[in-house]
This record gives sequence, structure tokens and C-alpha cells, in this order.
Amino acid sequence: MHEYQSLKVEQHGAIAHVLINRPAKANAMDEAFWTEMVDIFDWVDRTDSVRVAVISGAGDHFSAGIDLAMLAQAAGEMTQDIGRNAERIRRNVLRLQAAFNAVEECRKPVIAAVHGYCIGGAIDLISACDMRYATASAHFSIKEIDMGMAADVGTLQRLPHIIGDGMMRELAYTGRAVFGDEAREMGLVNRVYADHATLIEGVMGIAGQIAAKSPLAIRGTKEMIRYSRDHSVADGLNYIATWNAAMLQSEDLKLAMTAHMSRKPAEFAD
Amino acid sequence: MHEYQSLKVEQHGAIAHVLINRPAKANAMDEAFWTEMVDIFDWVDRTDSVRVAVISGAGDHFSAGIDLAMLAQAAGEMTQDIGRNAERIRRNVLRLQAAFNAVEECRKPVIAAVHGYCIGGAIDLISACDMRYATASAHFSIKEIDMGMAADVGTLQRLPHIIGDGMMRELAYTGRAVFGDEAREMGLVNRVYADHATLIEGVMGIAGQIAAKSPLAIRGTKEMIRYSRDHSVADGLNYIATWNAAMLQSEDLKLAMTAHMSRKPAEFAD
Amino acid sequence: MHEYQSLKVEQHGAIAHVLINRPAKANAMDEAFWTEMVDIFDWVDRTDSVRVAVISGAGDHFSAGIDLAMLAQAAGEMTQDIGRNAERIRRNVLRLQAAFNAVEECRKPVIAAVHGYCIGGAIDLISACDMRYATASAHFSIKEIDMGMAADVGTLQRLPHIIGDGMMRELAYTGRAVFGDEAREMGLVNRVYADHATLIEGVMGIAGQIAAKSPLAIRGTKEMIRYSRDHSVADGLNYIATWNAAMLQSEDLKLAMTAHMSRKPAEFAD
Amino acid sequence: MHEYQSLKVEQHGAIAHVLINRPAKANAMDEAFWTEMVDIFDWVDRTDSVRVAVISGAGDHFSAGIDLAMLAQAAGEMTQDIGRNAERIRRNVLRLQAAFNAVEECRKPVIAAVHGYCIGGAIDLISACDMRYATASAHFSIKEIDMGMAADVGTLQRLPHIIGDGMMRELAYTGRAVFGDEAREMGLVNRVYADHATLIEGVMGIAGQIAAKSPLAIRGTKEMIRYSRDHSVADGLNYIATWNAAMLQSEDLKLAMTAHMSRKPAEFAD
Amino acid sequence: MHEYQSLKVEQHGAIAHVLINRPAKANAMDEAFWTEMVDIFDWVDRTDSVRVAVISGAGDHFSAGIDLAMLAQAAGEMTQDIGRNAERIRRNVLRLQAAFNAVEECRKPVIAAVHGYCIGGAIDLISACDMRYATASAHFSIKEIDMGMAADVGTLQRLPHIIGDGMMRELAYTGRAVFGDEAREMGLVNRVYADHATLIEGVMGIAGQIAAKSPLAIRGTKEMIRYSRDHSVADGLNYIATWNAAMLQSEDLKLAMTAHMSRKPAEFAD
Amino acid sequence: MHEYQSLKVEQHGAIAHVLINRPAKANAMDEAFWTEMVDIFDWVDRTDSVRVAVISGAGDHFSAGIDLAMLAQAAGEMTQDIGRNAERIRRNVLRLQAAFNAVEECRKPVIAAVHGYCIGGAIDLISACDMRYATASAHFSIKEIDMGMAADVGTLQRLPHIIGDGMMRELAYTGRAVFGDEAREMGLVNRVYADHATLIEGVMGIAGQIAAKSPLAIRGTKEMIRYSRDHSVADGLNYIATWNAAMLQSEDLKLAMTAHMSRKPAEFAD
Repeated sequence: MHEYQSLKVEQHGAIAHVLINRPAKANAMDEAFWTEMVDIFDWVDRTDSVRVAVISGAGDHFSAGIDLAMLAQAAGEMTQDIGRNAERIRRNVLRLQAAFNAVEECRKPVIAAVHGYCIGGAIDLISACDMRYATASAHFSIKEIDMGMAADVGTLQRLPHIIGDGMMRELAYTGRAVFGDEAREMGLVNRVYADHATLIEGVMGIAGQIAAKSPLAIRGTKEMIRYSRDHSVADGLNYIATWNAAMLQSEDLKLAMTAHMSRKPAEFAD
Repeated sequence: MHEYQSLKVEQHGAIAHVLINRPAKANAMDEAFWTEMVDIFDWVDRTDSVRVAVISGAGDHFSAGIDLAMLAQAAGEMTQDIGRNAERIRRNVLRLQAAFNAVEECRKPVIAAVHGYCIGGAIDLISACDMRYATASAHFSIKEIDMGMAADVGTLQRLPHIIGDGMMRELAYTGRAVFGDEAREMGLVNRVYADHATLIEGVMGIAGQIAAKSPLAIRGTKEMIRYSRDHSVADGLNYIATWNAAMLQSEDLKLAMTAHMSRKPAEFAD
Repeated sequence: MHEYQSLKVEQHGAIAHVLINRPAKANAMDEAFWTEMVDIFDWVDRTDSVRVAVISGAGDHFSAGIDLAMLAQAAGEMTQDIGRNAERIRRNVLRLQAAFNAVEECRKPVIAAVHGYCIGGAIDLISACDMRYATASAHFSIKEIDMGMAADVGTLQRLPHIIGDGMMRELAYTGRAVFGDEAREMGLVNRVYADHATLIEGVMGIAGQIAAKSPLAIRGTKEMIRYSRDHSVADGLNYIATWNAAMLQSEDLKLAMTAHMSRKPAEFAD
Repeated sequence: MHEYQSLKVEQHGAIAHVLINRPAKANAMDEAFWTEMVDIFDWVDRTDSVRVAVISGAGDHFSAGIDLAMLAQAAGEMTQDIGRNAERIRRNVLRLQAAFNAVEECRKPVIAAVHGYCIGGAIDLISACDMRYATASAHFSIKEIDMGMAADVGTLQRLPHIIGDGMMRELAYTGRAVFGDEAREMGLVNRVYADHATLIEGVMGIAGQIAAKSPLAIRGTKEMIRYSRDHSVADGLNYIATWNAAMLQSEDLKLAMTAHMSRKPAEFAD
Repeated sequence: MHEYQSLKVEQHGAIAHVLINRPAKANAMDEAFWTEMVDIFDWVDRTDSVRVAVISGAGDHFSAGIDLAMLAQAAGEMTQDIGRNAERIRRNVLRLQAAFNAVEECRKPVIAAVHGYCIGGAIDLISACDMRYATASAHFSIKEIDMGMAADVGTLQRLPHIIGDGMMRELAYTGRAVFGDEAREMGLVNRVYADHATLIEGVMGIAGQIAAKSPLAIRGTKEMIRYSRDHSVADGLNYIATWNAAMLQSEDLKLAMTAHMSRKPAEFAD
Repeated sequence: MHEYQSLKVEQHGAIAHVLINRPAKANAMDEAFWTEMVDIFDWVDRTDSVRVAVISGAGDHFSAGIDLAMLAQAAGEMTQDIGRNAERIRRNVLRLQAAFNAVEECRKPVIAAVHGYCIGGAIDLISACDMRYATASAHFSIKEIDMGMAADVGTLQRLPHIIGDGMMRELAYTGRAVFGDEAREMGLVNRVYADHATLIEGVMGIAGQIAAKSPLAIRGTKEMIRYSRDHSVADGLNYIATWNAAMLQSEDLKLAMTAHMSRKPAEFAD
């Protein structure tokens, strides 16, 4: 496996554990982070032996969001022409978005395990994950509003589908802190754990369950849920029928059926 | 009323009570089930004296989902050509979907009353219903993942609108069991009852309330909520304005107004 | 500031407080109300010194919904031709919808503070607001069903995004009452206050927090959340990138950054 | 093959020739016509030996459109309540639309061969066909406007994609006659023939060419063009990739490749 | 009728003739033009006795597009903050767009009669009209590209539906001139007339034909064609079914039917 | 500039001339072609000195489409599992599509200059270009149907917007040849030239005209036309207003204005 600068990847069986790895900087997302995210999730996507990924933060926090030095540097690259600057900024925002699109579009489920700070760009990141779990003391905040800007790496697009429209706006306009239990109550996280160790243990357990399923079926399920969010139910039904036209001819169904009959777990190919 | 093989229909006043009726097989959905569903909900739709429908399971369970014998039979009908098999499978999936589309597109509200097992295809079915109520011991599971396939009869398209994106994925990837109280907490069911008898009594009470309203207004309301799920707010507002252009000329408004003034219940025509 | 007949507007710093002001009629929405709403939210939108608006009801209630006298009058204006009547009704419904569209499309956040009755058209109104807060005794009901009609001023389009599809249908079909705590549990309101005084104090506090943020960033955030509700995530990401291409060139980011460094609050221009 | 009342079906090899068969009434579309259309195109769709269909008119005309006796009868079935009448009319229009949806959704291409009158409902019908060919003297007119109504069986939805927005509106607002050559110039028909005999001969020739192709490839192509009309290019690209995931595993590609190498025509299974 | 500064309106029977009336300035669109357009088409829309509108240019040209003095003035109103300037520009563009949206959304057909220059903003305007007719010497050009900007008042959105994607891009990128005959060939105009007098006579004739039809049917037809351009065929079919649910109950159908039987023209109410 | 294997790139001033460069194989698209297309159009997109691109074929033809050896190789890579093969094929089709998406999404206009064969995959390619020009003897054919498959690299999605729905289906179902003049008549190409030399000269002239315009305005125009094809007019209008909020603050407008006043050509920065 490749060595990374701002991230770290470990493979435990079929689970890729991706750590944001700048603990001295509260895992702030620097230039390297954005590029490495694309590389890593491209690797997760195309590596058959990886069936599910977990993201967590090294050290005391998940992540404090985008590194302010990056913003300062971008500001320094502006030219004389407002129009051309706008084009440059637009393309840069699209480039950052691509890092989290890589998480969402990765064919394998990606689970966020959150402890400590999860603010600003970190909310954008976990919104692109499939599920979120946290410690009771995890601290969530849509901090962009306090930087004088509208969040532009995915929070405002994806989070309303997770926590609903009403609370979404309160958090986005005020930037107020939300902790583990309230996060669970509003659907931001699925479960709350007492501390970091039990969080990682719990999330690894869930990841392990997923890794034991038919990888083809898991990938189809992820594709369908993502597709359904952005399309009508009628379009979604037609899509799964077309998808399953091929996939129901896979061996995995026979394996699952046999396993079901014999009451033994099925062993699926990658 | 017609006699059915895998289902049973009773009419109590303006309420059609549809029972899944293979109790010895935990109400598994066999070939007859899918055809009869279409017939029954076509009948509910076009029968003026029926204003609302309730679906529940005969015996100890709501339903254990699709009958595995059906899947085995489908597997036996495959030809030599993968492409033509794909077309055949696709059309078969669309045919099964049509059974639950008939529930969703039925002009009258359809309420699921769930006790015991509600797994696999049964989740697809209740996702197409208007509301869901359950006993505390009701057992929900998106079981398709353990059959080596992505659910393809509506769960992945409709359920996210009901329980939100985050928990949706956990349930779809892991297939884990959810019971009554957790189901209520995540919005999967609206209310939990102590046992089967109180469940049926409670749901019949709600159905009775709906049956007493203007049928025209109820049908318009169902159409609008369904339409809004799949369209922008602007499109939805234009649609209700066009719809009500005719419907506000109905007698039901005058009846309702008179009833409101006299503080007596209105009696609406079917 | 202009004098209104059915509404009242007060400006407290950067907060516009809009009161529905027919307390003797439980703040029923009469002809003047609908016209004045458009005027007032046009004023809120274009007045730089106003950064956020709060809507509440004068007297004992938020609002009992549309004034039945209005419906009676509309009924009296019908001609001999059903087709031309339909066109007239359609255009009238679109006109009423425009009043609440003005709330939703206003660039500044609009917060509903609800006490007492909030029924019928009042639900349509608060569905178009950004957030909702209420007293414990606030009484919510989608009352249109009891008037023999499908609600047509926005409830059926906007509310499902706030409370989810399952409970939405129960409330819309039965018109049953919901009080403060249940409203909070289903996401209809974000927080419940003990009484009217603490409600107003709480909401003014939240409004004040929002008013202290960069107005440009708040307006961008509102635009993005509204846009995302009605578009795919991909479209939403492209839109914010295009939007921020200009907005990230604003002074507000530098002000925010400086404030962040100096740990003093930023003072943003209107 | 079944006997029909208002239509007639002949099978010539892999081509189904569907004739509108009320020549004494200029092939006006009566009650039987609408039901039989659904039956026939369901048969075309599911009958493997049929690979393409041709529609033409028996006698001197293609069709004079809906039989006015049908409209008169519908008018006679109205009740006292405007709202309930509206619901009944709406459902009846949807029922008529279903007849031409059956043409569009039929998996096999459907070609219209037009001579004589093709007016009113006949324009709706040919708009749902894949391609249109005509004699020089064929007479086209969107006649509904002269019946005091907006065309409601598909012309206004499908025809703009065929002839463009500008000429579409002229024809729809004025109902003016268009003959063969002008029809070809605006894209309404693909080719003009001197008379009825050469028209039928020419269309049968085109149908024969299509019938010789891989049926699976033809069906996929029809599905894609229809889908693309109503979806974004991005959605369309994703759909064909998913579709061809199965279809490129068919034997037809190998047959085609072998035929290409040996320069002999391929013989595809139905 | 009101007096206007940059436009002039004449009513001839049921036809409103709107003239762009700054002949000394080649009918360049100044500040007054944009406001008056909204007023005039609001008047056309709500005035029952007007059934169709014709737009043409006074003097030697249709219009040379936006008055450059307006652009210069807008440039002079900029502040110090790029972000706030962007917001101001965006709102101004939306305001100009609203003038041509008023043409498109007007319930009555609007026909452009073009002679002389029709460049820049004038192309945006005629793209929002229902149909276009021109003299042989009419001179069309998407001139915005030579002003260093992308056209932003509707050309790039509406014109592709009229002339197709391929020629659209050539005209938009090069700004090259197109004259009457080529305009007709590409579908930009429906017919070419020898000179201004025959153009106006011809267009008034077409307008007169439209004015003689059922106004209700014409309005429904315009609404449907506009709706279909922006929605799927399935959505369009559902919309016309809902629309006609009321409209087919109008007297106009009976009048049309009676007229048809007696072979006399029907006289429809406004 | 980089050396390529199956393509060749020359830069003439601001024009990139991309040649498909396997003349001995009739420019069939081999494995290298697909990868190099992405690289080249990424280079065109990001290289400021390139403002427009032209694609043509080296030797006697534009291109004979996909190299059949590629299909044979893909067939050889299949595994035992139909489902996993389907996933592999799907991803491969998406990969090929990406090569032509790179043409469409390139910010600079791309013009196809076609002579000789342009069949199969070559039609997919030119459909993704902005405009198409051809020699009289150019030979177009949607050849995929004769390979037993539905075209899956963009023809079926993009071409209907260029040539209309009716002729689209004839060409896609029959695969028949179309030559220059007919191609122009149906809008497939914008102009026909006598031979290859005049074609290249003519297209270079058009490219030169485009290269002289404001690059920012050209890029905005391309983005808007592409966006409009896939969105409603209302969405398109909002998008250009947001886009131009920044772009109208560019220097290019002042340069254009000054040039217009002084009647000298403007010189725009890249």
C-alpha cells in the first residue's frame, strides 16, 4: 500500500481503515489531503479485496475542517481580472468537491467514525459517507458560516437528506455545536458510543458484517440508494430492474440460497 | 367479492381489509400473491364504496417476503442466451414492481398494520403503503442482502423518504432486525401498539377517521403527496393549482362548510 | 415603515418582526393578508438593514388559517362556464401561493415562532419558513381536509421534506392535532419553549445570532438549501461552485478570517 | 391471430401490419379502437416472432381522428358534481393516452404509413410511432383546436421533439393543413412516396431491413432513444452502460461479428 | 390604453399589436423598455378581449438589442465589494429575464414579425415568442458574443429547442448574420415575406385565425407546449389529463361541435 | 506538445488541430485512442493559449469507428460469473464514454471536420462535438446496429438533439448511409464543402473567428448551451444569471465596448 502524507490507510481483512493523519493540526485538511482522498478512494473502489471502508481521525479529533492556510494561498493566486478569478475559483471548488464525490461514488460503503471535532469541511466529508457513528463527546458544527462563506464541498446538498430540512437550516445558519446524543436524535449519526475505543470497535463490527455479504449485492444496493436520492421513484424502479437483469444471473444468489438452506454462512468471491 | 388464493379481502363499511393469507408459510409471497395484489388494488381503486384500505397478515406474521420457491422457478426458466435472459428477468422484476405500484397508485390511502415478521419483500410492500403501524414485537429486516441481491421491488427507492438516508443504508447493508419501538423512532412506523388486537383496533380507528372525510379531498391529497416526492416544489404547486381548479367546484366544500357552521359531521358522497 | 391592515412589522436592529395581527379573528388570513405578505417580504428582501425575519401571531394564536369569508366570496364570483371558472380558480390559487413563495424566496432567513392555533393555511405558511419554534401548547393541524379540500398553498409540497413521508400522510389525511412536544419529535419544530414570552425571547436570540453572520454567506446558504431540495446533488454542487466563484471574492471572508485570528467578532456590512 | 372490430392485424414474416379498419368512417377512432390498440400492441410486444410493426389505414385515409360519437357519449355520462366529473374525465383521458403509450412503450419499432387524412387523434397516434412516411397527398392537421379543446392524447407532448418548437405552435394554434412535402421538410415524415402502393412497398422495405437486425439490439436502441428524450445526457449514458452490461454478453454480437467477417448476413434468434 | 415611452400598443379586434417604438435608435432596448414589457404583457394576459399579440418594430428595424447606455449605467453602479456587486448583477439579470418570461408566460400566443435588424437582446425576445415570421431581408445575429459576454436573457436557453443544437452553437459562437431564407430553413422563422407590408399583413392574418378559435383551448395548448418542453412526456400527459378534467366541461366544446355540425363558424366567449 | 500513438495534435495559433491518426486502419479507434482522447482534451481544456479545437481524420477517412480487435479483446477477459462480467463491462463502457465526455465538457468549442467514413463510434464522437462540417462525399452511418448492439458511447443520447427524433430512429434502426448533402439537410452538419482541402480551410476559418472572441464569453456560452439541453428553461435562466454575476465584472466587456466604439477588433487575454 502507498504511503500518504495527510492520510493513512490500513487494510484489516476486507476492511480499509482510512485515517486522517495530521493529529498535530487537529487533522485539518491541507492541499495533500484533497489529492490523497481521490487516490485512496480510487484504490478502495478498484481493489477487489476491499469491501468496505472506515474513515476516522488520528489523535484527538476527527477533523477541524479545511486548513485555513489553503484558503490564504488560494487568495494569493488571484489575478487582475475578476471574471478569470471567478473561473479559477469555480474550478478549484469543483476540484475539492471531487474528493468527496470519490467517497460517495466509491462502489463500496464508507463509514465515518467520529470523535472530537468534526467541523466545517469535516461535515462535508461525513455527509458523503454512507453512515456515521460517533462518541458521545463528538462535536459537530457547520463552521463555514463563521468563515463568511456558504459551505461548498457538499454539506448543503447532502445533509438535508440525512437530518431533514428544518434542523438543517438551524445548523447551517448558526453554526452551533451539536454533540453525540443530539446528533443521533436528529439522524446525523446512527449510534453513539461511550468513547473512542468502543466507537472503533463498534464500527469495525458493522463494517465486518457488511464485508461478509455478497459484494455484488452491496455495490448494487449502494448504487440504488444514491440513485434514488436524485431521481423519481419510477426512474429508480426502472434502474434497479435493468441492473438486476444482469446481477440476478450471478453465482452469489445460488451461494446465498445454499447457505440459507444449510444454515451456514455463504463465502462470496470478491 | 372475489375469492383469492394467497390473499383475502373483507369490506367493513368503507374500509377494505386486505389480508395476506398463507399463514402456514408465514405469508410468503408466492406467484398468486403478485397477480392478486394487482387485481385487489385495482378493485379498491375503482370501487366507489371503498375509501381506504388496510393490509395486515393472517396468522402470526405480516409476511416473510418473497417465496423462495418463486426465485427457484425463475432460475429454472433461463435460456442459453445471457442477453435474452437479462431481458426476461428485467421484465419479470418490472412485473413484480407493478404489484406494489398498484398500492402506491391506488387513489385511496393504504395502511399497513404489521405484526410478527415483516422481512424482505414485505418491506418493499409497506414502503409503498401510505402509513405503517406495528406491534412492539414486529420484526423488520431488509433481508434481500442475505439472499445475495439488491432489493428490487421498491424498498431502496421509497424507504429513504420515510426513514432518512443515514439509517436507510445501515439497514440495507446489514439486514439487521429492527423492532417496533426503534421502528417508530426512525419514522418507519407512526405508532406502536401492545399487541395484534390493539394494533388492528387502532388502525381500523384511523382508517375510519379517513373514511369519514371527503373522498375527493383524500384522493387529491394522496395524489399531491406522491407527486411532490418526485417533483420540485414549484412543479408541485402548479399541479395542485391545476387539480383544485376543478375540485374546488365540487359540492364537498359546501357540505364541509355547512357541517362546520352547524357543528355536525358532513356526509360525503363516495 | 408602512402601515398594514392584517399584519404588523417592527424592526429591531437587523431583525424584522412580522406579526399576524387580527387577534380578534384568531389571526385568520383575509384578503388583505395575502397582498400584504407579498409587500412585506419584498421589503424584507430588498432592505439591506434587515438580515433576518421572525413571524409570530398577535394575541392568543399564531393563526387559524384562511378566513372562511374569503372562500365564500370566491364561490360567489363564479360564472356560468365551468372551464372559465376553473381557469379563474387556478389563477387565484397561484396568487395565494405567491404570498408564501415570497417567504421562501426571500433571500433572508424567516423564522416562525408559533403559539396557540396554527392550523390550515398557517401550516402552509410555516412550511415555507426556514425554521419553526413553538410553545409546548401550540396546536398544529392540517385542517384543510375537514374543509373538503386538498391543501393547496404549499403544505403538501414542502412539509414532507421537514417531517418525512410517513407522518406527513397521517397528519394530512386525518387532520389530527399535534402539540409542541410531538411536533419537535417529528421535526416540525426545532425546539419547544414553556410559554409565549420565552418562545419570543428564544427565537429573537437565534435571529440575533444569524444577524451577526456575514449576510452574503447567509443568503448564499439559504439559496443553496432551497435549491438542493429540488435538484440532484450533482446539480447542487455545480451551482454552489458557480455561486461561490463570485462570492469568495467578497471582503467578508477576509473580515471573518481576521476576526477568527484576533478572536474578536467580525462586523459585516449589510 | 385474434379478430378485431376496428382494427385488423396481418403478420408478414417478422412484420406485423396493423390496419385501422373502419374505412366507411374514414377510420375514425371509436370505443373499440382504443381497447384493441392496447391488446394489439401488447401482442406485438410479447410475440417473439414479430420484430417490427407497421400502422396504416384501410381505404382512402389513415384516420380522421377520434369518433365524435365517443365524445358525445362521454358528455352524456356526467353526474351532478363537477369535481367527480373532473375525476372521471381525467381518468378517461389517461385511458385513451394508454392506447398510444402502448405504441411508444412497445419494445419493437412501430412505423406509420400515412395516406389521405391524418387529423386530430391520428396525429397523436403517429407522434407515438417511431417513424412516419407518407404519400405526397397525405393531409395532416392538429384538428383538436377546432373542436374547442387542447389535444390531450400525446401530440402536444411528443410532436415538438419531431418538428421543433416553432412550427409546432403554428400547427397547434391554427390547425392548418400540411401535405406530404411540407411534412417532410419539417421532419414530420422521413420520406414522401408518390402514392399509396409505393408508400406501403417502401415502408415494408424499411420494416424488412429492421427485422433483419438483432432484435435485442433494436429493442435496446428503441429503449435508449425514448429514455434519452426524457432524461439528461448524463442519465442516458449511465442507463445504456447498465443496459449493455448484460446485453453485450448476448450471442448476437458474436453472430454479427462472424457475419461481418464472412460477409454473409447474420441470422438472429427472435 | 396606457401610453408608453419605448413601446406602443394598438388593439385591433382581439389582436394586440405591440410595437417597439424607438425608431431613431433602431429600437434599442432602454431602461423603460424592460419595465414596459412586463406591464404590457401583464395587460395582454389579463385583458379578456385580447386573444393574441403581435410584436414588431416601428421604423426600419425590429430591434438592435439592448441599449449600450444601459450597460454603461449598470457598470457605474458598482460598489467596492465584488461579492455584493455580483449579487446586484445577478438580480438585475433576473429582472431583465422577467420581461421576456412575461412574454412566454402570457397565456395568449405572441407572434414576432421581424424586419431589419434583429440582433442581441432582440434574439432573446423572439425566442420567448410562440412563433416568428420575417421579411427576406431581416438580419438576425446573436450579437452578445461580440460584446464580450454570454447572452443572458434567454437565447441560450430557448433557441436550441427552435433551431436544433448544431446550428445553435455556430450562431452563438460566431455571431454571424443570418437572413430570412436561411432563418426559415433552420426553423428560426416559420415563413418569409417579400417586404414589411406583406409581413404584417401575413402575420395579422395568422393572428386573426388564432383569435377565432376557442380562447380556452388556445391557452391550454400554449400551456401544454411550454410545459412539455421542460418536462418528460409522462409528466406532460398527466398534466394535460388533469388540465382537461376541468376544461372539457366548458361550453366551448359544445359550441365547437354545433358549429362543426352546422358547418358555420363558432363564436366563442372571451 | 506530447507525442501520441493513435492521435496527433498540432497547434496553429489559438487553434488545436486534433487528427485521428491511424490512416492505414481507416482511423479505427483502438485502445490507445480512448486514453489519448482524455489526455488531449484535458490539455485543450487547461491550456490557456488554446481557444478552440478542430478534430479531423488523417488519410482518406474521418474514422471507421471502434477497432473490432478491442471488442474481441474485451470478450476474452470475461470470467465465470455473469454478474461480475456485467459489472466489468459496465465500467468499461463508462470508461469509453468518458473519452467523449471529455470533448463535450472541454470548456473550449470543438469542431468536427468530416470526410470519408464516419461510422459507428465516429458518430458517437461527432455527436459530442459542438459543430460538424463535412465534404459532400462524407459517409455517415450508425453502424453499431450491424454489430448486434445498441450504440453506447453517446450517439443515442446526443444526436436526437441535433437531427430530431424522427430521422434519428430511422438511422439508428437501419444503419443506412447518409452523405454530405442529406446530412446538412437534417442538421447533422452545418455546411458541406466540395472536398477535403476546402473543408479544412473552411473549418479553420470558422475556428479562427471563434478564437478571436472573448475566451471567457465563449466558455460561458458553451457551458450554457450544454446546461440548457439537460435542464428546464427556468433552471437555465437562473444559472446564466448566477454565472454572469461574476463574468460581467470581467475586463472583456470593457475591451469589447471600446473596440465597438472605435470600430477596431478587440484583443482579449487568454
